[in-house]
Amino acid sequence: MSRSPDTCRQAEAIAAVTVASPELANLDQEMLSQTEMVVICTPIAAILPTIAMVAPLLPKGCIITDVGSVKEAIVAEAIALCTPLGLRFVGSHPMAGTAFQGIMAAEVNLFRDRPCVVTPSLDREAVDMVRSLWQSVGMRVYECTPAEHDRAVALISHLPVMISASLIWTCQTEARDVLTLAQNLASSGFRDTSRVGGGNPELGRLMAEYNQAALLRSLQAYQQSLQQMIALVADGQWEALEDLLTTTQCDRELYL
Amino acid sequence: MSRSPDTCRQAEAIAAVTVASPELANLDQEMLSQTEMVVICTPIAAILPTIAMVAPLLPKGCIITDVGSVKEAIVAEAIALCTPLGLRFVGSHPMAGTAFQGIMAAEVNLFRDRPCVVTPSLDREAVDMVRSLWQSVGMRVYECTPAEHDRAVALISHLPVMISASLIWTCQTEARDVLTLAQNLASSGFRDTSRVGGGNPELGRLMAEYNQAALLRSLQAYQQSLQQMIALVADGQWEALEDLLTTTQCDRELYL
Repeated sequence: MSRSPDTCRQAEAIAAVTVASPELANLDQEMLSQTEMVVICTPIAAILPTIAMVAPLLPKGCIITDVGSVKEAIVAEAIALCTPLGLRFVGSHPMAGTAFQGIMAAEVNLFRDRPCVVTPSLDREAVDMVRSLWQSVGMRVYECTPAEHDRAVALISHLPVMISASLIWTCQTEARDVLTLAQNLASSGFRDTSRVGGGNPELGRLMAEYNQAALLRSLQAYQQSLQQMIALVADGQWEALEDLLTTTQCDRELYL
Repeated sequence: MSRSPDTCRQAEAIAAVTVASPELANLDQEMLSQTEMVVICTPIAAILPTIAMVAPLLPKGCIITDVGSVKEAIVAEAIALCTPLGLRFVGSHPMAGTAFQGIMAAEVNLFRDRPCVVTPSLDREAVDMVRSLWQSVGMRVYECTPAEHDRAVALISHLPVMISASLIWTCQTEARDVLTLAQNLASSGFRDTSRVGGGNPELGRLMAEYNQAALLRSLQAYQQSLQQMIALVADGQWEALEDLLTTTQCDRELYL
């Protein structure tokens, strides 16, 4: 299923799926009633409404997972929707993608060696089935609670967007002459540091909206680090600054 | 001239220069006395001492320029060293380079289409000679005061290093479990945003040390932008946040 009739047609044409439709009613109800696993791949805001819509058509024991980039806002409520119907929900966040959208942006090996988070459940069999799904396309699977996931992605994904956007914003407040010069002189350092701050604004907003608490926590921790960094520069503590930059140079390796 | 005898030997061997030596005294004094232009390419801290050392051996009218990444800390003092000896100083900052060092990292077209700042002087002929030098290797030359240069590079080069290092530092303050998870999940967004914060610590320290005032000014402006960004997230002003991210997305194009 896709919202777009074109996507459904193309998916069938390239044999990416056996059958596709933008309307649940058009799908073979007998086929739906034999479904073993459903993967919800919609924007965050549509995940819970989509589960609510498909759940009544699925057989007891069917496993539902998602691909949402936040987990606290999804998992508990998704379980609350599924459990009364005898369905089993396990949250997923496969972290892979390109700057492109749509079915024609499909890529062989998109998921290979990329990380994927799966949230735990007392239903081990369901968790293992979802783990196997992601492992079968080559992903490294990490199991952690929704709260741990949201804190980790706030740090390494959502915080960078905000500090990167703040950099662009700050530059634009400079006096006109210096700003024009800065634009002419900017090179790879600025380009890389500003990249995610110049990304999709809707995505940035959704990250913040659905991961508000963890993002705020990261932003406040960041503000404290920055404050200490500013103090080193203001006080001319050059040895301490170099020590700090030596530490960050080493520490960065741990993320690569 | 290079501090390193190996570099001098290699420069002669690949015919990059006619003659090279680590010792001024070893160079042909008559040749020195006929020099028309000297380009000082040392670390920032060595620029003024190097000018003081070579200036007495150079003929009246000889032009000296540098390649230092800050200009206020260099230009006025360099002029004060040169003028009494009848030498003409013009500051330069050719902005090109790779992550590699030494003569074997030399690259054809390293300077092509890259920006270069030249500082103004009442001695137009000297400025034009220095402009011609950089233009002859394909650089885009911008003329601006040392103060304007230092403010522009603080914004697009030195500020990114500090905010990028602060990102790495902030992550390292997380609880151990979440930190390990964050390290496993980090991908291109984190990699790009943290790149310059994981760069050469000595260079980062020197940027801050020699461009302290302009960097502090940028850091404080950044802190204000960040504070406003945090307020939007804390207050759940999602429309305003999306508007801001739309602006930064457009504005970034002006630097590329």
